[in-house]
Amino acid sequence: MTKEAVFLATAAVETLRNLRRAAPLTHCITNYVTANDCANVLLAFGASPIMADAPEEVEEIVALSTGLVVNLGTLNRSTVDATFAAARRANELGIPAVLDPVGVGASRLRTETARRLLDEIRFAAIRGNVSEIAALAFGTGSVRGVDAAVSDAVAESNRRAVAERLREFAAAFRTTVVASGALDLVVDAERFATVRNGSAWAARITGAGCMSTAVLGACVAANRERVWEAAVAATAAFGVCGEIAERRTVERGGGTATFRTELIDAASTAEPERLAELLRVEAEVFGGV
Amino acid sequence: MTKEAVFLATAAVETLRNLRRAAPLTHCITNYVTANDCANVLLAFGASPIMADAPEEVEEIVALSTGLVVNLGTLNRSTVDATFAAARRANELGIPAVLDPVGVGASRLRTETARRLLDEIRFAAIRGNVSEIAALAFGTGSVRGVDAAVSDAVAESNRRAVAERLREFAAAFRTTVVASGALDLVVDAERFATVRNGSAWAARITGAGCMSTAVLGACVAANRERVWEAAVAATAAFGVCGEIAERRTVERGGGTATFRTELIDAASTAEPERLAELLRVEAEVFGGV
Amino acid sequence: MTKEAVFLATAAVETLRNLRRAAPLTHCITNYVTANDCANVLLAFGASPIMADAPEEVEEIVALSTGLVVNLGTLNRSTVDATFAAARRANELGIPAVLDPVGVGASRLRTETARRLLDEIRFAAIRGNVSEIAALAFGTGSVRGVDAAVSDAVAESNRRAVAERLREFAAAFRTTVVASGALDLVVDAERFATVRNGSAWAARITGAGCMSTAVLGACVAANRERVWEAAVAATAAFGVCGEIAERRTVERGGGTATFRTELIDAASTAEPERLAELLRVEAEVFGGV
Repeated sequence: MTKEAVFLATAAVETLRNLRRAAPLTHCITNYVTANDCANVLLAFGASPIMADAPEEVEEIVALSTGLVVNLGTLNRSTVDATFAAARRANELGIPAVLDPVGVGASRLRTETARRLLDEIRFAAIRGNVSEIAALAFGTGSVRGVDAAVSDAVAESNRRAVAERLREFAAAFRTTVVASGALDLVVDAERFATVRNGSAWAARITGAGCMSTAVLGACVAANRERVWEAAVAATAAFGVCGEIAERRTVERGGGTATFRTELIDAASTAEPERLAELLRVEAEVFGGV
Repeated sequence: MTKEAVFLATAAVETLRNLRRAAPLTHCITNYVTANDCANVLLAFGASPIMADAPEEVEEIVALSTGLVVNLGTLNRSTVDATFAAARRANELGIPAVLDPVGVGASRLRTETARRLLDEIRFAAIRGNVSEIAALAFGTGSVRGVDAAVSDAVAESNRRAVAERLREFAAAFRTTVVASGALDLVVDAERFATVRNGSAWAARITGAGCMSTAVLGACVAANRERVWEAAVAATAAFGVCGEIAERRTVERGGGTATFRTELIDAASTAEPERLAELLRVEAEVFGGV
Repeated sequence: MTKEAVFLATAAVETLRNLRRAAPLTHCITNYVTANDCANVLLAFGASPIMADAPEEVEEIVALSTGLVVNLGTLNRSTVDATFAAARRANELGIPAVLDPVGVGASRLRTETARRLLDEIRFAAIRGNVSEIAALAFGTGSVRGVDAAVSDAVAESNRRAVAERLREFAAAFRTTVVASGALDLVVDAERFATVRNGSAWAARITGAGCMSTAVLGACVAANRERVWEAAVAATAAFGVCGEIAERRTVERGGGTATFRTELIDAASTAEPERLAELLRVEAEVFGGV
């Protein structure tokens, strides 16, 4: 391992250990399709999930919590209200909030909700697939130039160019951006990591993205002074769990439901040190502004 | 195999291959109990699910989609509005819509919603258990005569009589009806298939019916010119997955949760050709009108 | 086995057999996070679940049902209305209702809803973790004295003292209380059982409490003349399933998702006689009032 890789692995172990030690109460306002998976993966990594989305109670719930995760997967008028109420309160109290803008760009409701959230709320981190992040960060019309590069996929050939674009967005909103694809980028105003962990099987189940965001939220909650490192660790550790799950699924001749089981099993059984050994992460510092 | 059975098997292979090739975006407005299972089984068969039920966005979401599945499992005022909005738009755009009238007959809300849907919307296919289909097609009061035959069960002894009754309903609403029971009937105005595939274990988990309807919706979306053949293929292929899952569950000494895992595993691993080999389907053309 | 243990085991076998024989339609108004697990565990134990929470239909649905389970896990304005409507109708019709006051104490909405439910509705049984039960039964402010004993945990050292406190609550509301913790107490006005079955793994998945309450609701529905015995049997049988699941999970080197699968598998495969053999339950009659 290079010196930098050793640093990232050490930071990941610390992130994941802090997560287990703090067992942060993580308030999730999330879609009903994958809420169960998100709760289970949070428990598997050592966090304590609480799902609550009634506008009448979310300010109290978030105030009891250490972190907030908002996921727009099956938003409706009531949960949009709840999301704003909880996120505003989180900001007031200094509780880190994480956003997964699921399907942004697919409907005005999603796009406008995500934009308004960006305008009003400070998110410690934002995670989505690269198309969602592009739609959120640049809109559809305004970025046709970079669209091919950004929205097709993040690959070895364009990762630096994509990261540069995401850097602007991260800097403008003082956040850390995680854009997932064939490889994942974790970008803030100063540096970016390329995470090469993960399994192609993750795209064959519902909820892999939602789960990854939930884990991100919990990691940030337990490591709020080092958000970028926490985001790298969360993204890579979840990716490693996917790799372990893929290997076991193939060994057993299983299919996608077995993969889902193995994914959460891996999260609940692998020690931070073991996950860190399997990281395939590279970090780079951006050049001068 | 008879010539007819060969034809059905060949059509099933083509249906399932088209499904994989098209990977149709399938918009589901469905209940929160089994939404995760529906999304996962759609992915397993090669479709691309999107769950969205906010009235404000469903017209946009369905317009992006290739097929629409509406399931009344946990309907409420908001999702009823969303269902009508999405289904009307689907009809306008020629996007095939499929209905699962879960629990029709159990409450006025369900019965009236299902009836109004029938009045206003053209569904490419409608799938439910035989009691639901009877309640929807004939109402309770008006069909006391056929009630015993229809609502008790579809069995070898009465399948032709039940199919004849369902034919009238299918013809009146220009739809294909799938009525599930000890055996499944797939009926349109001209012919019906008797599907003998399936596992009794399916009734011991929640969501088997919902999943079968979701697969039906995706198969119809990817094969919209041949809805009846697509419905036969979807119903039989899902039934075969149940048989594979039952065998594996029994071999492993597992219970109903293992069966659920094996069911989705089978959907995600069995090749169309393999599923088609195991079909037990018989088709008959109705006599003259 | 002592004479008393034999009695409890015999009663448990009868409770579970009645459950299978009656297959009670169990109406659940429950949270979307674990609704799927609740439906599957009800089916596994032989009950027939129906999830429905639209205010417009719940009175009709509960009237068709044999039991009602209300769980405040992800309550919102609409489901609160539905809960009251269903529970009032259940009371009118003599259908036993069971309450799981998830998160009571965490928000005014939850606390006030649970208190209003207690005021207006007669529940055959109420189940929650010991903190929830303490918050519901005694409030936070009024019970500082007993708070340490009650809210920290129920353990061997304080179980009698806790049971005495819960007895007052059970008597005042003419209900049976199940308070879960390191060990579970099942308390009514006259006696209490200490249930030592269960697995520490249950706390590492979401939904174990919700599932236990669902099974309680179905057991009470099928054994309404002997609610306390039914509650002991449901609590202990679910705990035994956890023990079986833990053993199998460890044998297979699995994690928490495997545990969840094994838990429902155990519920669906273990015979009542087998579950009863593994009970670790002790009953005591309260001294005079």
